[in-house]
Amino acid sequence: MKIDIITSLPDFYKSFDLSLIGKARKRSLVDINIVNIYDFGVGVHKSIDDSPYGGGSGMVLMPEVAKNAIDNVLSESSILIIPTARGYVYNQTEAKKIALAKHLVFLNSRFEGYDERIVEHYINKGVEVLQYSIGDYILFGSDVATQVILETSIRLLPGVLGNSDSLTIESFCDGLLEHNSYTRPKVWKNLKVPGVLLDGNHKKIDDFRLIDSQNRTKKYRPDLLR
Amino acid sequence: MKIDIITSLPDFYKSFDLSLIGKARKRSLVDINIVNIYDFGVGVHKSIDDSPYGGGSGMVLMPEVAKNAIDNVLSESSILIIPTARGYVYNQTEAKKIALAKHLVFLNSRFEGYDERIVEHYINKGVEVLQYSIGDYILFGSDVATQVILETSIRLLPGVLGNSDSLTIESFCDGLLEHNSYTRPKVWKNLKVPGVLLDGNHKKIDDFRLIDSQNRTKKYRPDLLR
Repeated sequence: MKIDIITSLPDFYKSFDLSLIGKARKRSLVDINIVNIYDFGVGVHKSIDDSPYGGGSGMVLMPEVAKNAIDNVLSESSILIIPTARGYVYNQTEAKKIALAKHLVFLNSRFEGYDERIVEHYINKGVEVLQYSIGDYILFGSDVATQVILETSIRLLPGVLGNSDSLTIESFCDGLLEHNSYTRPKVWKNLKVPGVLLDGNHKKIDDFRLIDSQNRTKKYRPDLLR
Repeated sequence: MKIDIITSLPDFYKSFDLSLIGKARKRSLVDINIVNIYDFGVGVHKSIDDSPYGGGSGMVLMPEVAKNAIDNVLSESSILIIPTARGYVYNQTEAKKIALAKHLVFLNSRFEGYDERIVEHYINKGVEVLQYSIGDYILFGSDVATQVILETSIRLLPGVLGNSDSLTIESFCDGLLEHNSYTRPKVWKNLKVPGVLLDGNHKKIDDFRLIDSQNRTKKYRPDLLR
């Protein structure tokens, strides 16, 4: 998978090399390229944004700047992703969908402000544009959201995780939160690991964990059960 | 606000200095301390995790290691935050809540696996423990989730954002997504900025933006309207 990230904070992505994304890069499972949007800025000051029409606080990414940065990397198989609080909900189903893509182009903006005509322009050109919201909260800028979308989709690529098990038994796969986990020691601060997990009876362990998952989902995320 | 981040990836947080979090630190609005959990590892190899009881893939953060790292920074006013896909939904309301806290302690784990007794132990001791899910997807580890929680809460602290306007007119504040934004030029690629935004009639602009917000919410997030 090829990934281009258009951003005003190129150094922000240096932390990639610390996570599994870095390992996926080293194994050539993903080819990630960071594009500094200031290279496409206009005027003497290489500006990338301007005040919003109609007033209001914050700056808005100029459409021509975004277009020049996008066109520089766009190919026929590209999907354009714009992380924004104003988008569709990004979840594990979407992660699986974009993990199948050949080429992702991320357009980032500070304070999530960009000229809406950028979206219109690329939709008119037949490009798939995904405006994704990673959650119902407001970030400084979209770069952390891009990291979330990348982490969640890249870990689904074949060969990235060592053990394929961890992709089948995890939260949201079956509409439930994952069961509780326990490790050594068996008794800690007077708190015991549930006995069934120590018996080695896999059928009983599976049954216990399913009930544990159901109880946890009821308590923490009753909305998932509706 | 004082913040301690317990993590196995201390370098991951270097990118903080690039964002408004860095500016908030420089202005002493937040005091962020990174704790390397390996400093609390056990045995010759300074291990922090072990296999899960009952089998399964992945490693589980050992309760004693977590406890030693947490106790090292915990005070009477601390709230313990554990980012996990298995938690309560983190949203803008929660961001506002924790922005009022004096001291936040974040416990991170790789692959979001930790011994559940850690939570039980601190609840028993009267500590407020918040297990937060930033969205319905699976990350490599919880560190990106910690960044999301920090960005969203720190930007709400007084003095962090220059213009207080941007805190009142934004997505989720009134249960709607924010309206579309536009900047120069007025006509771009045959796409025009809506005329009402150019007229300078603030009443008309406000009305237009409210309808724009409602339409956008209907299209992208009908769930917010229910």
